[in-house]
Amino acid sequence: MYSKEIQKKLKDLGVEIGDSVRVKRGDQVYEGILMPKEELGDSNAIVVKLSNGYAIGIKFEGAELEKLSGHRQIGFKSSDEKIKHIAGKPLISIISTGGTVASRVDYTTGGVQASYNASDLVSIVPELGSFNINSKFLFSMMSEDMTAEHWKEMAKAVYKELKTDTSGIIVTHGTDTMHFSTAALSFMLKDLNKPVVFTGSQRSSDRGSSDSFINMICSANFASKSDVAEVSLVMHGSSNDDFCYAHRGTKVRKLHTSKRDAFKSVNDEPLAKIFPDGKIEMTNCNYRKRCDGEVSLDDKLEEKVALIKTYPGMDPGIFDFYIGKKFKGFVIEGTGLGHVPTTIEGRSVIPKIREATKAGIPVCITSQCLFGRVHDFVYANLRKEFEAGAMFCGDMLPEVAYVKLMHVLAHSKDLEEIRKMMLTNIAGELNERTPVFEL
Amino acid sequence: MYSKEIQKKLKDLGVEIGDSVRVKRGDQVYEGILMPKEELGDSNAIVVKLSNGYAIGIKFEGAELEKLSGHRQIGFKSSDEKIKHIAGKPLISIISTGGTVASRVDYTTGGVQASYNASDLVSIVPELGSFNINSKFLFSMMSEDMTAEHWKEMAKAVYKELKTDTSGIIVTHGTDTMHFSTAALSFMLKDLNKPVVFTGSQRSSDRGSSDSFINMICSANFASKSDVAEVSLVMHGSSNDDFCYAHRGTKVRKLHTSKRDAFKSVNDEPLAKIFPDGKIEMTNCNYRKRCDGEVSLDDKLEEKVALIKTYPGMDPGIFDFYIGKKFKGFVIEGTGLGHVPTTIEGRSVIPKIREATKAGIPVCITSQCLFGRVHDFVYANLRKEFEAGAMFCGDMLPEVAYVKLMHVLAHSKDLEEIRKMMLTNIAGELNERTPVFEL
Repeated sequence: MYSKEIQKKLKDLGVEIGDSVRVKRGDQVYEGILMPKEELGDSNAIVVKLSNGYAIGIKFEGAELEKLSGHRQIGFKSSDEKIKHIAGKPLISIISTGGTVASRVDYTTGGVQASYNASDLVSIVPELGSFNINSKFLFSMMSEDMTAEHWKEMAKAVYKELKTDTSGIIVTHGTDTMHFSTAALSFMLKDLNKPVVFTGSQRSSDRGSSDSFINMICSANFASKSDVAEVSLVMHGSSNDDFCYAHRGTKVRKLHTSKRDAFKSVNDEPLAKIFPDGKIEMTNCNYRKRCDGEVSLDDKLEEKVALIKTYPGMDPGIFDFYIGKKFKGFVIEGTGLGHVPTTIEGRSVIPKIREATKAGIPVCITSQCLFGRVHDFVYANLRKEFEAGAMFCGDMLPEVAYVKLMHVLAHSKDLEEIRKMMLTNIAGELNERTPVFEL
Repeated sequence: MYSKEIQKKLKDLGVEIGDSVRVKRGDQVYEGILMPKEELGDSNAIVVKLSNGYAIGIKFEGAELEKLSGHRQIGFKSSDEKIKHIAGKPLISIISTGGTVASRVDYTTGGVQASYNASDLVSIVPELGSFNINSKFLFSMMSEDMTAEHWKEMAKAVYKELKTDTSGIIVTHGTDTMHFSTAALSFMLKDLNKPVVFTGSQRSSDRGSSDSFINMICSANFASKSDVAEVSLVMHGSSNDDFCYAHRGTKVRKLHTSKRDAFKSVNDEPLAKIFPDGKIEMTNCNYRKRCDGEVSLDDKLEEKVALIKTYPGMDPGIFDFYIGKKFKGFVIEGTGLGHVPTTIEGRSVIPKIREATKAGIPVCITSQCLFGRVHDFVYANLRKEFEAGAMFCGDMLPEVAYVKLMHVLAHSKDLEEIRKMMLTNIAGELNERTPVFEL
């Protein structure tokens, strides 16, 4: 909420949030739409969204406020409006699935809700004007609600775009589970021949502090100009607006709740550093290149998979709960090198691994440490897990192993075949040679 | 396993693992105990443990091997042997609970098992000779098997030592769940008046590559010389053997499966940088100081608490499973700012939060991002969680919120009181002022 002083002034002038206003302060004059106060912003500063799409805060003390004619919400082009292609510009496709990058402040609650589509985004990121854009609206979802069904829809939409003469695809997505989606599409799009770039933002696009502009521009450059025919995730590389990283879709994770550079590559180098001016510096030499081959879509997923984190005092009965519900696979987020409670009767997870394995249900081991590899023989307790049937997933992230097991289970019911598929690299998710120890 | 060439030579000479041997190579002569090959070590190098406690690998090619008289396992002082105190040296207490720091290679399997006690440790870290040591054997456990019962035993043992004239306590502990234990003791030891330092190692102490020497020496210096009357965790600060960090016990997490510097402070600065020569550089000014007050022990814990990670496609029925088992509290590891699946019927966790809250079961929200804070109003979906009754735990780590809720539930059954206790800082676990956004 704005300060009482500002609220009184707004009331006196009959100005409401969303009205066009002019604010003079000293020599400066600002015209635009009056916005609600930013969360944690100064309650004594008026926030105005300028016509260039940026919002600024202006100190109220000493400022003159004037209402301009007409009351309107911030205007954006509708999703149906076609943007004409101009010869010579690279063609990219933007598929919108929702998230903060596609959200704006809800004037009723002051919170943020998904409401933009891809065309809107184009209209608020003027730098995208140097691209021809095919814009597709798929969902308007916050990513915490995504499920395997949505991954399938996304994979289909991307596959369809890949068949056009587009130079690369951007998928805008909520950040919370974006790394699950990039992993899913990494497994579902086989023989990829063009860049598929996921991006989003940590602050909604109608805020002055939004990171969506740089993320969108870097994504557009990476999608159109890079030769990386992989599913990648492009987001801020630092807390400044200076560059983005492209992370491999199977080796990335959200590691901060709110920072612009919330995403980090885990157990791999980022693929590339991308600058807003279009410069791309490859930081990883090991990637799939653009090619003329045919991409194929493999969108089968077994959804009855559970991700289970172990911790001191956990109830191993959780496995029985899932087995009772006919779950088909488990991914365990163990401690350290992949440990689970082992030796105390009634607390041990080992009998559950054995029972599941005997019932033909694969149990995959990853680590809640996130960085590093799990291992099946360094400690006696790890051997007990291995002997009970557990599959140790190397340096695969727990989230990625979860998605991969869904994919693998949709293709085989045979435990040995599943083991082989889980422990074979498909889409950069498993580095065979990360050293276990620095000896 | 050693190379066939080495195995043949050992057989020819009648040398077994554990025998005393002399190895000459060029001008160098090494005498010590023949060790098994290190995991991932060179199979063409002979590993010999020298009398100073260090093990080295010697290239077999061009080396001469000779058996010395007598066959023995590596010898250590027994746990009953008293170490005489010498006037003028600082007195520290070492409580041994097991883990890698207290483990050695199992000659049968080549794996690693817990088998040292505190006196053994003293005998293999000669640098501890500059301290008077009270050595207590508590457990011989790998930390993946620890439970709340063990935390209580540890808290009691530490409390007893604090009442002596010791200058500080070291607890040796397995690394996997050490951060759960440091959090537990942070809440259980009230009005702490001396340093309580947890340490461990990533490689067993009978290996040349072990990090236990530096960790033990830095811990002894920090326990005896620092003025930090908190529960801290001291482990390698880098991949080299150059210094350790002391992390606050409630703000630290294992973030690598195998590196020496696996532990990182999360949402806080490390307390101090400690050098093996005893130098201590404080890196955080905000800590509890040594004092003359009386420490008290509060070892009540409610063990019926579950830690639940949310992810795309999760089955919200998991809450019913725990409620059916009479669980008393939940900590959710949400996505991003603390989101849970919200809007899709049958997938939404919101009704479960509401049901639990109505039944008097607190639901605490943390983030699987680990870094950053959760928030209850930035997005409409977060408000729905808040309105359903969820308690947003700021920048508290999920593991720490889990332990804290066990502690809090043992002291109150009243939801509003529980909320107040969860959201009030007790032992450095909650920073009130971490900025949510970098505005």
